[in-house]
Amino acid sequence: MSTGRPAGRPRDSAVDVALLKATQDLLIEVGYDRLSIDKVAARAGASKHTLYRRWPDKSQLVVAAVGAPRGLPPVPDTGSLRDDLLACARAYVDGDDRSEKLLAGLLSEMARNEAVRVAARDGLGVHYTALFLAVLERAADCGQISPGLDLQLIAGAFPAFAFHRVVVDGQGVDEELVTRVIDRIVMPLITPLSTGRASDGRAPSTGSSPGHF
Amino acid sequence: MSTGRPAGRPRDSAVDVALLKATQDLLIEVGYDRLSIDKVAARAGASKHTLYRRWPDKSQLVVAAVGAPRGLPPVPDTGSLRDDLLACARAYVDGDDRSEKLLAGLLSEMARNEAVRVAARDGLGVHYTALFLAVLERAADCGQISPGLDLQLIAGAFPAFAFHRVVVDGQGVDEELVTRVIDRIVMPLITPLSTGRASDGRAPSTGSSPGHF
Repeated sequence: MSTGRPAGRPRDSAVDVALLKATQDLLIEVGYDRLSIDKVAARAGASKHTLYRRWPDKSQLVVAAVGAPRGLPPVPDTGSLRDDLLACARAYVDGDDRSEKLLAGLLSEMARNEAVRVAARDGLGVHYTALFLAVLERAADCGQISPGLDLQLIAGAFPAFAFHRVVVDGQGVDEELVTRVIDRIVMPLITPLSTGRASDGRAPSTGSSPGHF
Repeated sequence: MSTGRPAGRPRDSAVDVALLKATQDLLIEVGYDRLSIDKVAARAGASKHTLYRRWPDKSQLVVAAVGAPRGLPPVPDTGSLRDDLLACARAYVDGDDRSEKLLAGLLSEMARNEAVRVAARDGLGVHYTALFLAVLERAADCGQISPGLDLQLIAGAFPAFAFHRVVVDGQGVDEELVTRVIDRIVMPLITPLSTGRASDGRAPSTGSSPGHF
C-alpha cells in the first residue's frame, strides 16, 4: 500500500498478486522462519529473478504480503448500537480467519523485526480496532453513550480478547466469545444505566455532543 | 519395579536448572526455530549427551523450560480493591518481563505445537488471570462488587490488553496501561457506581473494605 513504487514501467500486477498470495500461503503453512524466497517462487510459478527484483529480501517480501490490501467491511449501521458492535466482532470472526493464521505465522518474527511487526499490526490487526472505534465515535456523536469514555481503549477490548484467545488459548474466536465480550464488557462500559446499574443518580446524557474537529 | 530413572542416582538438579535457564535465555535471544540442543548444551557448559538423556527432543526441552517453576506473587490484600487490582497488574509488569520475552520467542511454535502452547499458556500466562480472579472473587464474597458479573472474563481483561500491547503494538506494558485498564475498564465494570466513571487515576475511594469473611 504505502510502498513507494518506482515511476515508469508499471509492475505486472497479476504476477505480484500471485507472489504475495503464495507468500501468505506459505506463512500460514510453515511460518516466517521456514519460508524462503525459493519456495515462494516455486509456489507461484515465477522465477526467483522476478521475485528478487521486486523484493530484495525475505523481510521485504513478507512486509509486502502482509500489507497487501485486504477488504475491511464497511462500518455497520443497523440502527442498534449493540447490533453494530456485534457486527464488528463478527466481521473479525467470520471475515478474516486468514488474518489470524497469517498472524500466527509471523508472531515470533514480530518480536524481532520492527518492519514485520508494523506491517502485521497495520495489515492484520488495527483495522478491527478502527472498525469498533468508528461505531463508538458515531454513537458518542449522537449522544448514545456517555461522554468522557476512553473509546480508543474500549474499541480495543474485543480485538485484545480475541487475539489472546487465539494465540494463548489456542481456540477459535466464536459466537460465544463475541456475545460475551460485547454484552459483559463493552456494553456495560458505554451504556449509561440501561444495563442495570440503575442508581447512578446521573441523568443519561442526551443528544448534544457536537461533532469534533 | 523400575522407574525411568536409574536407581540410587538422583538427577543433578543444579545441572537441570542450568540447562533450563540456558534454554530460556536462548528462546528469548533467538526464538524457538533457531534454538538447538547443541546451542543449549554449549551455553550451559553441559554435554549434549546429558541433555539428550534428559529431554530427547527440542520440543520436550522447551516444554520443560517454559514450565519451570516461576514464582507467582501472593494475592494482594491492601484493603483497597482498586489498589489490589493495580498490584495484580503491576506484578505482571514488574515481575515478569522475562515471561513476556519468553512468550515472544515461542509464539509461532505455539500455533503449530500443542504441547508447547499448553506449556506456555500454563507456565507464562494463566497465572496472572488467576491472580486477578482471586482478588475479584474475594471482593465478591465480601459484597464489595455487584453480583452476577462475569468475573472470569473481567479477570482476563488486563492480561489480554497487556499481551496485545506487547505482541501487536511492540510496546512495553507500563504504568500508563496499568492505570488506564484498571480505572477505565475493570473498575467501572465492577464497582457499583459510587465510584463514578471518573477514571482519571485519582483514586475515588472504594470505601472501607471490611475484613473478609
